[in-house]
Amino acid sequence: MTTLQQFNQQMQPAIDQTMQGVVVSHPLIGEYRGLKEMLSYHLGWDVKFNRGEVQGKRIRPLLVLLTCAACNNNHWEKALPAAAAVELLHNFSLIHDDIEDRSPLRRGRETVWKKWGDALAINAGDALFSLSFEALHNLKQTCSDNVVIQALKIVNTTCVKLTGGQHLDISYENERAIGLEDYWRMIEGKTAALISASIQLGAVIGGASDQTQQYLAEFGRSLGIAFQIQDDWLGIWGDAARTGKSTESDLLAGKKSLPIVFALQNKGKFTERWLAGPIQPEEVGYLANLLIEEGAQSYTEKQAENYTHQALQSLESANLSNEAGQALHELALMLLKRNS
Amino acid sequence: MTTLQQFNQQMQPAIDQTMQGVVVSHPLIGEYRGLKEMLSYHLGWDVKFNRGEVQGKRIRPLLVLLTCAACNNNHWEKALPAAAAVELLHNFSLIHDDIEDRSPLRRGRETVWKKWGDALAINAGDALFSLSFEALHNLKQTCSDNVVIQALKIVNTTCVKLTGGQHLDISYENERAIGLEDYWRMIEGKTAALISASIQLGAVIGGASDQTQQYLAEFGRSLGIAFQIQDDWLGIWGDAARTGKSTESDLLAGKKSLPIVFALQNKGKFTERWLAGPIQPEEVGYLANLLIEEGAQSYTEKQAENYTHQALQSLESANLSNEAGQALHELALMLLKRNS
Repeated sequence: MTTLQQFNQQMQPAIDQTMQGVVVSHPLIGEYRGLKEMLSYHLGWDVKFNRGEVQGKRIRPLLVLLTCAACNNNHWEKALPAAAAVELLHNFSLIHDDIEDRSPLRRGRETVWKKWGDALAINAGDALFSLSFEALHNLKQTCSDNVVIQALKIVNTTCVKLTGGQHLDISYENERAIGLEDYWRMIEGKTAALISASIQLGAVIGGASDQTQQYLAEFGRSLGIAFQIQDDWLGIWGDAARTGKSTESDLLAGKKSLPIVFALQNKGKFTERWLAGPIQPEEVGYLANLLIEEGAQSYTEKQAENYTHQALQSLESANLSNEAGQALHELALMLLKRNS
Repeated sequence: MTTLQQFNQQMQPAIDQTMQGVVVSHPLIGEYRGLKEMLSYHLGWDVKFNRGEVQGKRIRPLLVLLTCAACNNNHWEKALPAAAAVELLHNFSLIHDDIEDRSPLRRGRETVWKKWGDALAINAGDALFSLSFEALHNLKQTCSDNVVIQALKIVNTTCVKLTGGQHLDISYENERAIGLEDYWRMIEGKTAALISASIQLGAVIGGASDQTQQYLAEFGRSLGIAFQIQDDWLGIWGDAARTGKSTESDLLAGKKSLPIVFALQNKGKFTERWLAGPIQPEEVGYLANLLIEEGAQSYTEKQAENYTHQALQSLESANLSNEAGQALHELALMLLKRNS
């Protein structure tokens, strides 16, 4: 078992328990049975076996805990409230995103709005938003007031960025073409912000020096951007996307992903086809190749490499050489080189 | 000019300025032009004249500031970030409530979802939620870390209550009849929580003793409940409601207000008609009278009197005898005896 796997095995049950403590065991939520049921469903606690499949990988809380441990002599327990908070916040944004995108399925099951309707789902998202901050307040038991305030402020400012990025994403849906600058601004908020915040939280709670905190913040930002670029690559050239049988290709979804936004700058054959109207499943293979011909794949890979390189360099500068530091490095590599 | 009017005249522009400082002048919001425009519209800053009509009365921030001043030798400036925060939070909940209730109009203008669609509106509400906490963090400039954390916690727990109350409200829409206990639980979250929080914030920031804080918390809770009962009374027997021409009668809206919920316990003529299906405009006058005959008006008035009495008694126990204390008393009376 690798160091990362060892940490992961210890951390995942603790993350889950902390999340449950602040959601289903919250003294107020108990009074609203229907609401508790909705949140338990979304967070996968209604499932008895193979929960992992409906709960997602919980990467963000892992980043919080590993960063804390790397700065704090391998100890991570004191960061658990923050780890729970980022995962709850991520899940709040999923509930609302699914309504906004009209997505009927999430992790193989019906989405919350599909099951309970828009009104209750919007409100359940709001409840989870509040509960994620309830989790953060529990830091008070192990951290100084100053650290608690810093943590609350990091997460809150991240929320402003998330909603800003999401605003751009929704707005772009009505535009057939956007520029590269628009793209970078959008993913900065949508993906990079919360991943970066997770790492910053771990650093602050772990008591890292200002210099280390800064390196780690840069690591988090680059990691988040590289992660999104990787996601965009997979959305066009990943196995599931290329078959064209599934709806997993970003070409079918009309998503403003990096390869597509890049190709639209060229105003070549791809642009011509894209602007002519929605893509059909049988065109997916041809267009994925056209994107390669027009340089979109090499551009995307170049950007992914750049940000990956920056991320790893910042992490190295932070100089976290204990076991948790190694596990964090391992997790970063895994996120940056994944193929699904 | 009464003492309340004098304070109000000084406070309102300061509240507005603080709110603008945290929304339109927020360094991040500036990057998302469309989002800034939506929030400015909802908060009435796009209007040049008679802004008051589209901005509402801003009673909650006034409660924060007056309570702070009453505890703090008539000084209220240090509580401005909290005053802005509760008003922003109230407005976040209005944006989402309007989507959830499909209300097309708010303060005489199109609601945010009606103008920009559900997706952008849900997200704009989330942004305002986050910005209200950004406002609270500015307390750091004038308060100790401990007070900042207390304030953040008060507001956050209030959000959990708000979403709990809203969950019940939406759930009850599909039930033709609910019990009195359900009613009390719902308004505790929907209305009383934020009014009570406003007063608690003023007390904590104003440096009130634990004993005074407790009296004021009780004052806030009773005031909030009495305020809602008053609202329910007006929704059936207020001038606008009785004409039956407008849609302002809670009878037409099928709202689970106190007089209606009370009458449904009786299982008399009113219940019979209510369970038979939606009320028509021409029945409004008759049914409003039927509610009186079945004792719903006297029950509602009795409850309003009880909570009003409790509110005023708790306020008296807090013993705030300076000018701001008098103004707070005046505001409470105004809220409890209003006729529109």
